[in-house]
Amino acid sequence: MPWKTALTTIQDGKEMVRGRALAQLMETMTFTEAIFFLLIGREAETRETKMLNALLVAALDHGVGAPSATVARTVVSTGNSLHTAVAAGVLTLGELHGGAIEAAAQFFKNHFTEKDISGLAKKLKAEKVRVPGFGHKVLAVDERAKMLFALARKNKFHGRYCVFAEEFEKALGALSSKPLPINIDGAMAAILLEMGFAPGIMKGFFIIGRAPGLVAHVYEQMTSGEGIKRADESEIEYTGETGKHV
Amino acid sequence: MPWKTALTTIQDGKEMVRGRALAQLMETMTFTEAIFFLLIGREAETRETKMLNALLVAALDHGVGAPSATVARTVVSTGNSLHTAVAAGVLTLGELHGGAIEAAAQFFKNHFTEKDISGLAKKLKAEKVRVPGFGHKVLAVDERAKMLFALARKNKFHGRYCVFAEEFEKALGALSSKPLPINIDGAMAAILLEMGFAPGIMKGFFIIGRAPGLVAHVYEQMTSGEGIKRADESEIEYTGETGKHV
Amino acid sequence: MPWKTALTTIQDGKEMVRGRALAQLMETMTFTEAIFFLLIGREAETRETKMLNALLVAALDHGVGAPSATVARTVVSTGNSLHTAVAAGVLTLGELHGGAIEAAAQFFKNHFTEKDISGLAKKLKAEKVRVPGFGHKVLAVDERAKMLFALARKNKFHGRYCVFAEEFEKALGALSSKPLPINIDGAMAAILLEMGFAPGIMKGFFIIGRAPGLVAHVYEQMTSGEGIKRADESEIEYTGETGKHV
Amino acid sequence: MPWKTALTTIQDGKEMVRGRALAQLMETMTFTEAIFFLLIGREAETRETKMLNALLVAALDHGVGAPSATVARTVVSTGNSLHTAVAAGVLTLGELHGGAIEAAAQFFKNHFTEKDISGLAKKLKAEKVRVPGFGHKVLAVDERAKMLFALARKNKFHGRYCVFAEEFEKALGALSSKPLPINIDGAMAAILLEMGFAPGIMKGFFIIGRAPGLVAHVYEQMTSGEGIKRADESEIEYTGETGKHV
Repeated sequence: MPWKTALTTIQDGKEMVRGRALAQLMETMTFTEAIFFLLIGREAETRETKMLNALLVAALDHGVGAPSATVARTVVSTGNSLHTAVAAGVLTLGELHGGAIEAAAQFFKNHFTEKDISGLAKKLKAEKVRVPGFGHKVLAVDERAKMLFALARKNKFHGRYCVFAEEFEKALGALSSKPLPINIDGAMAAILLEMGFAPGIMKGFFIIGRAPGLVAHVYEQMTSGEGIKRADESEIEYTGETGKHV
Repeated sequence: MPWKTALTTIQDGKEMVRGRALAQLMETMTFTEAIFFLLIGREAETRETKMLNALLVAALDHGVGAPSATVARTVVSTGNSLHTAVAAGVLTLGELHGGAIEAAAQFFKNHFTEKDISGLAKKLKAEKVRVPGFGHKVLAVDERAKMLFALARKNKFHGRYCVFAEEFEKALGALSSKPLPINIDGAMAAILLEMGFAPGIMKGFFIIGRAPGLVAHVYEQMTSGEGIKRADESEIEYTGETGKHV
Repeated sequence: MPWKTALTTIQDGKEMVRGRALAQLMETMTFTEAIFFLLIGREAETRETKMLNALLVAALDHGVGAPSATVARTVVSTGNSLHTAVAAGVLTLGELHGGAIEAAAQFFKNHFTEKDISGLAKKLKAEKVRVPGFGHKVLAVDERAKMLFALARKNKFHGRYCVFAEEFEKALGALSSKPLPINIDGAMAAILLEMGFAPGIMKGFFIIGRAPGLVAHVYEQMTSGEGIKRADESEIEYTGETGKHV
Repeated sequence: MPWKTALTTIQDGKEMVRGRALAQLMETMTFTEAIFFLLIGREAETRETKMLNALLVAALDHGVGAPSATVARTVVSTGNSLHTAVAAGVLTLGELHGGAIEAAAQFFKNHFTEKDISGLAKKLKAEKVRVPGFGHKVLAVDERAKMLFALARKNKFHGRYCVFAEEFEKALGALSSKPLPINIDGAMAAILLEMGFAPGIMKGFFIIGRAPGLVAHVYEQMTSGEGIKRADESEIEYTGETGKHV
């Protein structure tokens, strides 16, 4: 089966990434710089590295209550190995768990030229459209999103998409009794657009940033001595047929 | 189902990692520093950060021929989403693909006080034990392992485990016609031991370091326009019954 | 975390499935009957059991060239355990690999009342819509689809959806130089609709039917003594930067 | 990459499984018969089919409290598709969740010729060895195991391994205050040995039998309208640093 790739090859017995010896990258680049170099194919500017660091740290870990963490911990508790449990955690990052980054990016791309942002918010509210990148199940204000925008300003990535996102947040807030703050998905989406990334790869930054969190949770569970994690019967409501056993 | 964790919690509406606000970590730490902080619970020294950067970059990507990359690319080619394909790549990191790190670390821990290293090598060769962390299917010398040891020296992590690993490499080489260089798994194991990590978490660094490589491969495949990747019939040899169809 | 289920509970120390003791099902039902009973909540009629048997056997295995099989075999070859490799195979069953069942079912539901089937086929061809459930990368005629329709006829499940599917196959064939036979996804979709299943669960039958095939492939690979499966360098074309290593 | 297989091939444009046209198997075999034929390469005797039916039904579903079910349901709740969630459920079937089948089979193979079974039980108890295949977290008597042995007797599969397993259960019971009944893993192991299967493939029967249960749970969750399943904060105990946020 033929494969084509522009990423990495072996040349004269050396691993070469984007035309540079991997051994050289190890000596000259930080992990974040190397991530940028691998994904984009050129060296990052200092401000790009700073912004990317913040984006990856933002995704690092959101606690054991994040479904990816509970799944990864449950999977290791049944006797699986670390990589299997981390993989199960990554699998859990579906459309509703980190997946809003891409959807929010598409929303920003489609609407950032809109003049009447308040009108747009009203129209979407009337249509009961749930706008991706806004609102959070647990947090009323998303400090991490605020920090990302502050760092975007500092590093000169606070352009048209970020402006639109913040304006739209205000417009939503004016319409709603409960807070609908821009969340980390929305902030990541706006800033990654400013940095020139395509929506289709954005979830990748969330995965890369969250990988250490999943490793940490899995290792904590592995070494807890707890054994299998399973729901108590008290947590389960049976709503089905209650027949007779013969 | 009750969960205990010392990693991350929500306090006063803020995500707190190891007692620090995540938003603060985003402002003050690089991704690598934050990984160390999350896993260990204290700030890294500069030499620890440098060493960890090199270890993570070493694992970044080893090309499309690595089974984790071919699996991840095949999985996305059948119409799966990015996170699903990356998870499949992580799953592929079994005992024989990155898994030697932990086994090598156990080997080093069990034998680093050995005086007669040449004798140990002879004994293991006679017993046909395949020592984890030495040899490579494709590379004759593993440049990345050499670089890791050089950087370990530079950053003062070249202690007893690294000395043992290099001595054992020499002893193996003296016994064998084909090269059995210390490979990246072996070098990572020795250095992570020097840094104080337990063998059970070491595979985690390989996963964290490789996550960007998997993302890059999956995205490259997704955007290739190729459709499903499947083995040609010419690659398949049927060795079974050839009956009659009725 | 609360869970609600109507499937299975423990009552008086006995596992009860849909109101019947599991131990009783073991004594009185075949596997196929039990699958139907679990999914639907009532006993299958004989014709339903026969049809379901044929549908599940149709999905049993399509050879090592199916991406789910190559992935599962590659994953076990890196030292993973059987269940991990089978899971990787199931993951591979994306939209383009078994996923057409649901899409075909939606297509049949939307169009089965169409009077002018030939006109519909022309219109879709003109719009370059790829209709799910028709065509096959390898096979010119899909014997399994033919057999499914024959058995549907025999068991009185050849109703309006099957009639539409066969008419549409003819209409497509009349327009095209290369064959676009109804394939196994299309046939399963039409017949599962006749049996009263919702499109959203149809992929599940493909997974259930294919699970034995994945187990068989993984076990064959595990016991082959081959070691890691990886792409040859000759199969890989590097299209990227060829820089200088320093 | 070359592949060898004795399972399935395409011959004269027809899918051939073990030398027979798949389309023919669809017409002539039940799903259970086809599973046996695929795995073994010969037609099952009637008693083999009956026994295999019971073994597969035994594994069908053990409720939402089984970690594989909670994981699969959580994974679909985050917006994943059915096959992804089922795969996550299969991943959860680690050493401590269905994995005891293989370990129990090894135990039976190693000890079934033992004359002094009571002495063996005492010795293992003294050494605090946890014998695989005995004991259950929730059930005091495993009805399903009892039924499997009854059906093994009826179908003439109650040979030396089953006799040993039941004798060992008695010996364990005589030593212990809490019940240590033979569980479903132990019963499956003993009977699959009687049927001639190797320990390494036994987990496969558990996976095949459980696949419909996972599909049923995932579909029930998908159609529940519940949204993301996540642990309540009240279920999480934070045991780490409580620092100050700046």
